[in-house]
Order: sequence, then structure tokens, then C-alpha cells
Amino acid sequence: MKIIIEKDYEAMSQHTCHILLGHMSQAKRVNVCLTAGRTPKRMYDFLVESVKDKSYYRNVHYYSFDETPVFTPEGVRIKGDNQSQLEALFFKPANIAQSHSHFLSETNYETFPQEIELAGGLDLMLVGIGEDGHICANMPESTQFNQLVYAIKLTDEFPWNAEYQKSLNGNYSDYMYTLGAKSILKAKHLIMIANGEEKADILKQALEGPISEAIPASMIQLHPNLTVITDDKAGAKLTLTNLG
Amino acid sequence: MKIIIEKDYEAMSQHTCHILLGHMSQAKRVNVCLTAGRTPKRMYDFLVESVKDKSYYRNVHYYSFDETPVFTPEGVRIKGDNQSQLEALFFKPANIAQSHSHFLSETNYETFPQEIELAGGLDLMLVGIGEDGHICANMPESTQFNQLVYAIKLTDEFPWNAEYQKSLNGNYSDYMYTLGAKSILKAKHLIMIANGEEKADILKQALEGPISEAIPASMIQLHPNLTVITDDKAGAKLTLTNLG
Amino acid sequence: MKIIIEKDYEAMSQHTCHILLGHMSQAKRVNVCLTAGRTPKRMYDFLVESVKDKSYYRNVHYYSFDETPVFTPEGVRIKGDNQSQLEALFFKPANIAQSHSHFLSETNYETFPQEIELAGGLDLMLVGIGEDGHICANMPESTQFNQLVYAIKLTDEFPWNAEYQKSLNGNYSDYMYTLGAKSILKAKHLIMIANGEEKADILKQALEGPISEAIPASMIQLHPNLTVITDDKAGAKLTLTNLG
Amino acid sequence: MKIIIEKDYEAMSQHTCHILLGHMSQAKRVNVCLTAGRTPKRMYDFLVESVKDKSYYRNVHYYSFDETPVFTPEGVRIKGDNQSQLEALFFKPANIAQSHSHFLSETNYETFPQEIELAGGLDLMLVGIGEDGHICANMPESTQFNQLVYAIKLTDEFPWNAEYQKSLNGNYSDYMYTLGAKSILKAKHLIMIANGEEKADILKQALEGPISEAIPASMIQLHPNLTVITDDKAGAKLTLTNLG
Repeated sequence: MKIIIEKDYEAMSQHTCHILLGHMSQAKRVNVCLTAGRTPKRMYDFLVESVKDKSYYRNVHYYSFDETPVFTPEGVRIKGDNQSQLEALFFKPANIAQSHSHFLSETNYETFPQEIELAGGLDLMLVGIGEDGHICANMPESTQFNQLVYAIKLTDEFPWNAEYQKSLNGNYSDYMYTLGAKSILKAKHLIMIANGEEKADILKQALEGPISEAIPASMIQLHPNLTVITDDKAGAKLTLTNLG
Repeated sequence: MKIIIEKDYEAMSQHTCHILLGHMSQAKRVNVCLTAGRTPKRMYDFLVESVKDKSYYRNVHYYSFDETPVFTPEGVRIKGDNQSQLEALFFKPANIAQSHSHFLSETNYETFPQEIELAGGLDLMLVGIGEDGHICANMPESTQFNQLVYAIKLTDEFPWNAEYQKSLNGNYSDYMYTLGAKSILKAKHLIMIANGEEKADILKQALEGPISEAIPASMIQLHPNLTVITDDKAGAKLTLTNLG
Repeated sequence: MKIIIEKDYEAMSQHTCHILLGHMSQAKRVNVCLTAGRTPKRMYDFLVESVKDKSYYRNVHYYSFDETPVFTPEGVRIKGDNQSQLEALFFKPANIAQSHSHFLSETNYETFPQEIELAGGLDLMLVGIGEDGHICANMPESTQFNQLVYAIKLTDEFPWNAEYQKSLNGNYSDYMYTLGAKSILKAKHLIMIANGEEKADILKQALEGPISEAIPASMIQLHPNLTVITDDKAGAKLTLTNLG
Repeated sequence: MKIIIEKDYEAMSQHTCHILLGHMSQAKRVNVCLTAGRTPKRMYDFLVESVKDKSYYRNVHYYSFDETPVFTPEGVRIKGDNQSQLEALFFKPANIAQSHSHFLSETNYETFPQEIELAGGLDLMLVGIGEDGHICANMPESTQFNQLVYAIKLTDEFPWNAEYQKSLNGNYSDYMYTLGAKSILKAKHLIMIANGEEKADILKQALEGPISEAIPASMIQLHPNLTVITDDKAGAKLTLTNLG
């Protein structure tokens, strides 16, 4: 595990972008799996600037790792929440070809891990961490560590579901789909980003505490090639050295 | 995960040997981590025959993954149990140079993971599984998943300790040392071997059940490049396909 | 470079098979590029026995590296010479699925290197060597080292063409297609096999002499992970140690 | 081969630095081989800023690839020309530990390729190109392509020797030492940088012309993972696309 604590969100975002570009600049197919959310926003500003319309990055294929299809009250499907975010953050402003954009969805999730495998596996996977310890859409107690992919039925058994459904403005979701631990640990280089003091506790727990399905993000301790990049606040409570 | 169920112990041993030779036959440094015990005995017969005095395998370095130092009642250290076994099974009959033999011990265990790292990491790790679900010397409830290496104090808190000490014929051990999950999951190719019907239940549980520190071997489900080779009996209860 | 001189053709064939199986036994997509010809015949006997109907090898995809389409005097295309050979030697007896069989031909040769690239590259490439120093269908002076793939017009400028056309029993060929040095050097592990005393001189020249387009096989000296396996006769004149 | 033509020397230097950081940011030993000379000067400014005193880069080991020992007229050895340059450009300002600095010299050149091999090989190698087509210290007609390392006796048979000796201000050199093609092609990622219009012709010739020992840099066409980064002037005459 390598831990890089940058002085602020700007520096953390630039550094993350450079690591991505380092991989992408190789002269062979490179498969990159990307996260949506708030944390990578500034990173995508830099990445779009570097990648937009650059033909020398056409060796790169992009993948998403989770999806929550949203439906209107009438049951009409609205484009997946995650795909919409990723398109707005990166795919559209960077003009990424559709043939190089691979989105997990309710129609392909069962074969998505195999699609990745047949393309040579993920060279790089970028993930965030939730304040509740979630990683991708592996929510606490909603998935285990022993599958490549999960379909999670959204019921009120999950304490976070009510609030999530409320956030959809009258629409609703019935399932979430996500790559699981077995897929995440296959990525050749895993990069976790986190910023803000509200992430400091969970990050410490995930990286320095026991490995447990109650804190899904704790699985990343088992990744053979993990780099964690934070701003000064999210990394403030870490006591780990980089050994191991 | 790839599961190979061979028709008998002989076929399983040959197949395992061939996989090892496949890696070792590359033209670059190859680091191989080997298991002692009963399961690999026949495999070592084949390996010794292929490797003995062959200068073209001098690119290979060998590592062990655990050790239990044994002491006489007077406190004199007898050579480590695991090293003694490995030397008898492989290192002596195959004439492996000392400079290519790297044994974990009570004096180097803290830096052993780093020694492996500095040598480019393990290309291949061969492990067995205990009927109690142990892997390397990660005994049930004696280690967690979040360290590279463990020193386990042998006390009667562990239900298996009394019997173990009895097996030492008047001698005793105070500590066991073993690579942990974080090291095992770093090997580029992990091979688990198992034979005999007494391994069928635990193998099914480890490969198809939940991932839990109560069954340390269950961690291998998370390995990105895992091959399991069994005879017909140990593999008899597996229902897994090879997908994932 | 690693050089393995076995005691006879049988031992060389078995050893080569074991190296292939070692790679194929990994738990991820493995791309293997195979040679036809006389040299690998016995190796395919062993390989077919190990691979036939084994579902645990369905992670393997197979590629060919050259082709010479043959035409009747009336201009009707007969199945490619190389594909026919490979099917007889391996693909048919081993029951390899068509979806896992990728043959270079006159219709796909321009995009074949890219097809390989998009599938993650070749993990293993098995080649022979001709008495004239050819490798794949890179004949002396018919190709250079600076392309991924070549279409070679078969004219009598090439001293070997007349004899080749004669061997086709009244049929004829107008072009040969072959992966070139740039593709061959991309394979992650390159294995050259040679047997018989008639190969001893050219093997020595290719491995120990200058690197030159006059001896196309000499290019393999530049491969970063090359294993050469011979019987006692083909390897008899090599003076190289395995260093480097 | 990937070709990246940046808008100027500043952009090319930054981009090169980012690729290096991308590799170095992995959580495992990373071996980087660096070039001295004029071309990488600005790149080192950026690299020093990113690397200086950063404990999270202590997984990186640095290597040089050539050396020309310099002697006073009295025969007293002055520190190697290349080591001195690299120390001034990078090792001293970035405070790189001596234990992580590996310089090729007249005393270790014969075992230097093996030292690299035993450390897991080079993950990244950064090279420039000379106007005469040299790469590392492989000068035209002074080395071939078939060795890991060369000791080149500096005699006036080489047309460039007189001028070189003159540049040493009354001192002299008798030998140059350099990694050869076989070592250069083993690096897992090879990056060539070039700037200025005086490099445009030779770069085109090296990348698009025949592969020949008369233009030693032409060997890089054979590298399986090559990235070329130039400013607008050095890349101005390239007609290559990035395919292949």
C-alpha cells in the first residue's frame, strides 16, 4: 500500500490525474475503470484537458463499475445514474468514442466481469470511499466479498434506502448493480481517492482496521498494488507508514 | 478462479509440477514460494527429477512461507520444522544453491515480505489447505487478514496447541511465523493443491463459502489469479464452475 | 535467453508441452500463438491429450501467425495451408471451439495485429526455425524487421519460390502473409523449438551470430523473454550460456 | 508505438514527468532507468519538485545506462561523466538515497544487466536520441544489437572520437560503457524524448526507416511498449500514425 497525502484537494486531483496519464501513455491497450461522485470532480477537469481529442489515447478503453437504474413513477427507465454522471464529468467533455466506453448496467452486469476479463483485465481502477465505508456500490452489509458482481435489491431493510429513494425526486430505483470484491481485487493497480475531513475517520478505519464486510472498503487492504491519494484533511488521521 | 480436478493423486501431482515448470522456464528471474507437508510429496518427486542439476533453472529463487522453530527441553533451538521438511522434500535432492534458497524464520520474518518485494515479488506461490481451514500457518482465529506477516504465540488458548506440542516428542515451540493474507494475495499466480476425501468438505467451504478469518483459506477466493488442483476425492464436492 | 537442450525429440516435445500448460493453467484469459510444421508434431500429441475436452482451459484463445492461401489452376481458393495443418495437428483433435480459434488470413492480416492487441496481447508464442533462417513466414530477404505484418508477393525473385510452387501439386500461391518482427517481439514469452542435426548450424547462427534481416530468426535474440528448446542434435553446436 | 507530439518543450517535459510519476506511484518496487543530457533538463525540474523528500517514493530504484570515465593527463580518474550529470540534474536536488542509486561504471558493467534482472527488471527506461542516431552510448557502428552491455574502446577509428576527446579540456577517456539493444528492449516501458528541429530528421529516420546498426536508435521500433514524446519541432517530420 502506498499512501500519498497531498496538501489540498487541488494537488490531490492533479496527482491522481498524472497517475492515470502515466498508465494511459503506454503503447498497448489500457483498460481504465472510473468512479463518478464528488471526489474526482477536479481530477476530471485535468483529465479532460489532457485527453480531449488526443488520438494518441485511443488505446484506452473506459469502464464503469456500478449502476443504479432510475424509473419514473410510471416505470419508465431514466438513464442510469452513474452513467449520466460519468458522461457529464468525463466522457462527453473528453469526446470519448462510444466504442471505447463500457458501462455496467442491469442488462449486462452478469457478463460484465467476463467482458473485462476477455479484454485483458483492468489495468487501473479508480475508486472513492463513502462515509459509511462503501466502495463502488458495495454498501455495508448489502454485499459480501465472494462475488465478482452483485445485484442488490433496494428494500427498506437497508437503513440508507429511504433517504436514497427520497433523493430521486419522485422517481425510484429497485436494484443497484456493482462489481464486487473479487472484481475490484483483480485490477492491476487500484487507486483510492478521498478528500475532506468527513472522510478522515472512515479512511483510517478502512485502511488500518480489520477487514470486514461491515466496512466494504476495508477489502482494499488486500489489494496487491494499492495507492491511496488524499488531501490533507481526509488523510489526517492515518498513522500507517507505506511499508506493506 | 480455475479449478482442475484430476483423476488421482498422481495426475494431480504431475499437473502441478508442469505448472511450476511452465513459470520457471521463462528467461528472467522467477520467484517461487513453496509448501511443505504431505500433499505436495509426489509433486516434489517430479519436480526434483526435472530441476536437479539443470543450470537452465538458475534463474529461479525459492522461498518458504512459514516456520515453527523447535526447542529442546533445555531451550536449544533445533532447525525449523518447515525448513527441515522443505530441504528433505526438495532443496537437498534437487541440489538447490543456498543463495537461491530463502527461508522465513524467527530472525527475518519482519523483513521477509520486504525482501520478497525488493526481489520483484513472488511469481508463483504453492499452498495447501488444512482440514481446519488453515493456509500457510494462518490457523483459524490465530491471525487476521490485515498483515503481511504474523508471529503467533503458541498458547493453550488455541485448541490445537496441546496436540501440536505433544507431536514434538518432548521438544516444544513457542511461536509460529507465517506470511499473512496481504502477502499471499500479492503472489502473481497462486496455486492451491489438495488431495484425499478428508479435504473435500473444507475445500468446498473455503472456495464456495463466505470469506472469513474463521476459515483462513477462504481468503484465496480474493486472489486475482488462482488455480486449484485436486485429485478426484478432494474436489468431489465442488459445484463451482470456473467462471470468475 | 534461456536455452534448454533435451536428450531427444521426445523429451523436448514433452518439455515444450509443459511450458504451454503452465501458462494456460492461469485463471485469466491466455492468448497462445502456435506454429505448424514438422517440429511440433509430437508436442501436439501431448498437448491434445492434456487439453481435449477440458473445460478448465476455456480461458485460452489460440492464434496462428502466418498463412499461404493456395489456389487451384482455375483460381479457386483452397483452405490456407497453415490453417489446414494446425487444424489437423491440434484444433480438431483437441476439439477447440471456433470462437477460440483465430487464424491469420489474406482477408484479416492487416487488422490481425490490432485484434491481438485488443485482446490483451499474446502471452505465449511458439515458433520454429527454418534451415534457411526463416521464422514464421519471414523468409530471408523477403521481409524486414520494421512491420507488424507482411504480405509477401511470391515471385521468382525469391530463389525458394519455384520449389515451393512445385510442392503444391499443380496448385499455386500468389502471396504469403506473416506476422513480422514487431509482432513477434511483443509476445510476452517467446518459445523457439528445433530438432534434428539439420537445424544445428542455423540455430547457432541465429542465436549467436549478428542480428540481420538475412537471417530473420536472428531477431529473436532481441526478445526480452525467450526460451529455446532443442533436442540434443539441434542444440549440439550452441556455445552460449544462459546469461543474458 | 505511441507518438506524442506536444506543443513545446515545456509541455513535453511535463508530460514525460507525469508518465514517470504514474509508474512510480505504484505500491511495489519500481526500477527506473534515466538519461542525462540536454533533452531531459526541464523534465528533471518537474521531477525533482515532485519527488524531493517524498517518503512515498522510496519504492523506486534508479539506474543509469551508460558511463564514460574521464582521466586527467596524469591518469587520475575523475568521476564518470554520466554519473556527474545525473547527480546534478536529479539525484542531488531530489535527495535520492545512495542505496536507491545504481550507476553503471567500468567496475560493474559486466554484471550490471544481471543486477537489474535480479531486481525484477526495469519498469521504465527513459532515453534520448543523438543527431547521429545514437541511443544510450550505442554510437553508430560502435556496437551491434546482440549484447546486453558493451565496452567501447575509444579510438580514432570512430570519426566522433577526436571531437569528444577535445571536449574534455585536457583530460581523456579510453572506454565508454553502455547497455546494448538486448538490455534496452527488456525495459517494460521505453520512453524516448526528443526536442528541437535538429532532431527532426534523425527521429524520422529512426522511427520510420529500416532497423539498422548504422542508426542504433532504430532498434526501438522493435520495443513492445514504446512511447515517443517530442516537442513540435522534433516531431515535425513524422508521418507515422500510432497504429503498431
